[in-house]
Amino acid sequence: MALTSILLQGRIACANVLSDLYAMGITECDNMLMLLSVSQKMNEKERDQVMPLMMKGFRDAAEEAGTSVTGGQTVINPWIIVGGVASVVCQPNDFIMPDSAVPGDVLVLTKPLGTQVAVNAHQWLDISEKWNKIKLVISREEVEQAYQEAMLNMATLNRTAAALMHKFNAHAATDITGFGIIGHARNLAQHQKNNVAFVIHNLPIISKMAAISKAGGNLFGLLQGTSSETSGGLLICLPREQAARFCAEMKSSRVGLSGAVGQDGGAGDGQQAWIIGIVEKGNRCARIIDKPRIIEVPYRGSVVSAQEGSHNNASPTEVQLTQQLSQ
Amino acid sequence: MALTSILLQGRIACANVLSDLYAMGITECDNMLMLLSVSQKMNEKERDQVMPLMMKGFRDAAEEAGTSVTGGQTVINPWIIVGGVASVVCQPNDFIMPDSAVPGDVLVLTKPLGTQVAVNAHQWLDISEKWNKIKLVISREEVEQAYQEAMLNMATLNRTAAALMHKFNAHAATDITGFGIIGHARNLAQHQKNNVAFVIHNLPIISKMAAISKAGGNLFGLLQGTSSETSGGLLICLPREQAARFCAEMKSSRVGLSGAVGQDGGAGDGQQAWIIGIVEKGNRCARIIDKPRIIEVPYRGSVVSAQEGSHNNASPTEVQLTQQLSQ
Repeated sequence: MALTSILLQGRIACANVLSDLYAMGITECDNMLMLLSVSQKMNEKERDQVMPLMMKGFRDAAEEAGTSVTGGQTVINPWIIVGGVASVVCQPNDFIMPDSAVPGDVLVLTKPLGTQVAVNAHQWLDISEKWNKIKLVISREEVEQAYQEAMLNMATLNRTAAALMHKFNAHAATDITGFGIIGHARNLAQHQKNNVAFVIHNLPIISKMAAISKAGGNLFGLLQGTSSETSGGLLICLPREQAARFCAEMKSSRVGLSGAVGQDGGAGDGQQAWIIGIVEKGNRCARIIDKPRIIEVPYRGSVVSAQEGSHNNASPTEVQLTQQLSQ
Repeated sequence: MALTSILLQGRIACANVLSDLYAMGITECDNMLMLLSVSQKMNEKERDQVMPLMMKGFRDAAEEAGTSVTGGQTVINPWIIVGGVASVVCQPNDFIMPDSAVPGDVLVLTKPLGTQVAVNAHQWLDISEKWNKIKLVISREEVEQAYQEAMLNMATLNRTAAALMHKFNAHAATDITGFGIIGHARNLAQHQKNNVAFVIHNLPIISKMAAISKAGGNLFGLLQGTSSETSGGLLICLPREQAARFCAEMKSSRVGLSGAVGQDGGAGDGQQAWIIGIVEKGNRCARIIDKPRIIEVPYRGSVVSAQEGSHNNASPTEVQLTQQLSQ
């Protein structure tokens, strides 16, 4: 693993830990603990090279979040593990209970899907049996780009989204991680006070990951929404009339948060967010429509060429809003 | 590993996590998280037998502590891991900053040392090369008893000690874990406001563990205080005139704490505590005297026979106090 990847790994772990707070609209974290396991299989040199970088990445992200790591624990283990705990003591109006979605709300997603596919495809570059299954739909260079894109997305804090949840009166939110978008959407739906159902029409996915998933025989169930994400975006129920402005502000700014962005893997100037579905009357369930629209999200390194290309991907938010509400 | 051992393992992990709060005199924990890794090497049946028991042990101990587990995380890993996080929001007078030892204080320890030796000796029952080195000083049955004693001690909460720290005006405390008693004593000494030194005269050790350590060639440095403890006792700096009463109350009661004790491995009616040293003027360091008195702490299963025996071990606290102050 390249050294920058290790640094990013630390950032990703921290972003993933903080995401649970952000999903409740909490923007300030009082305290973080870092949990590490050092692999017993590393020699001393590897250990001294890898672990400090991973810890630095974690601390950098904590700093970006305006908090700091005050403790933790390190153990020995066959595998490297990095994780943590984020905690805060806050006032009732600092957080948004994720239980107040109403029919008529729309669903917004703040990061594209496909991190599991991207990370696995990257590993398959060196496993010819696996690579042969997907090489017809993607080049090696694109796999590298998709992997970088996934790493950057995972390392991005959901803090801006948390702040904007207050500004635009979010009714409920969750962060997308191990159970995939449909798993977390179902869980969120189950916990609503009102009789609602979440219907997902659009799936924003890192470019070409949908094609890989199809080529591999519906790999990880990406198009069914079951593929795991790590440090995924927030899925937010917003009043319909607020959602487009939420997405526009996500893209344009970091809404005055103190977090300066390092040059070693932090978030970009702004984040794309997508309106991906609607809240209907229903039985506290969630589903993806039969043929969801796949939004191909271009790699940041290739944003210009993708926008100049003719394959109409990553449409403006307003267009999507109109389209999905008319479905 | 026997099933009761697995249950105890969960209890021990929880007691160990809570110990950091107890060392600051905090008796109430607001919230606990349980962190688990399930071994990928277990088959489904093993997993379904082992993990629920371990979780039950952890939860039982949390309940005994008057708190509960509200969340956590489970991952897959080659090894089983169990751990957690305990947190509390409290008032300044709920905790005791561990920085106010003064010359004239005495040092009290609330659990015997030797857990690492006991656990390892138990594993060596099945490794003839190792067993041959220690079999002259201990029987197989005694190893079993020492192991049970170590497990029970590790599973015992330091909560009573935390409560009594307030009653008897403790000046500072720490819990004894991975760095051994001398490591934690040094760390505590370094953080004192006053110019003090900690001098340890007595080492209460689970019976026969000192002999094993000697037979094995100073195994783990037990007699130098470097042997790791898991979920060890509190090392507390107490005003000299309060220490004997602290020990007496530790032994006699659970000072009105709500924690009921289950029949599956909880603490006993009361805990022995020992005055093990003194606080002198000094340079914020800690040491064990040249020939410390080894207090052989009998196995609970054999308390009666040990007390009736002629080998004067586990003397009453008052006697120890007189002895060590006259050294």
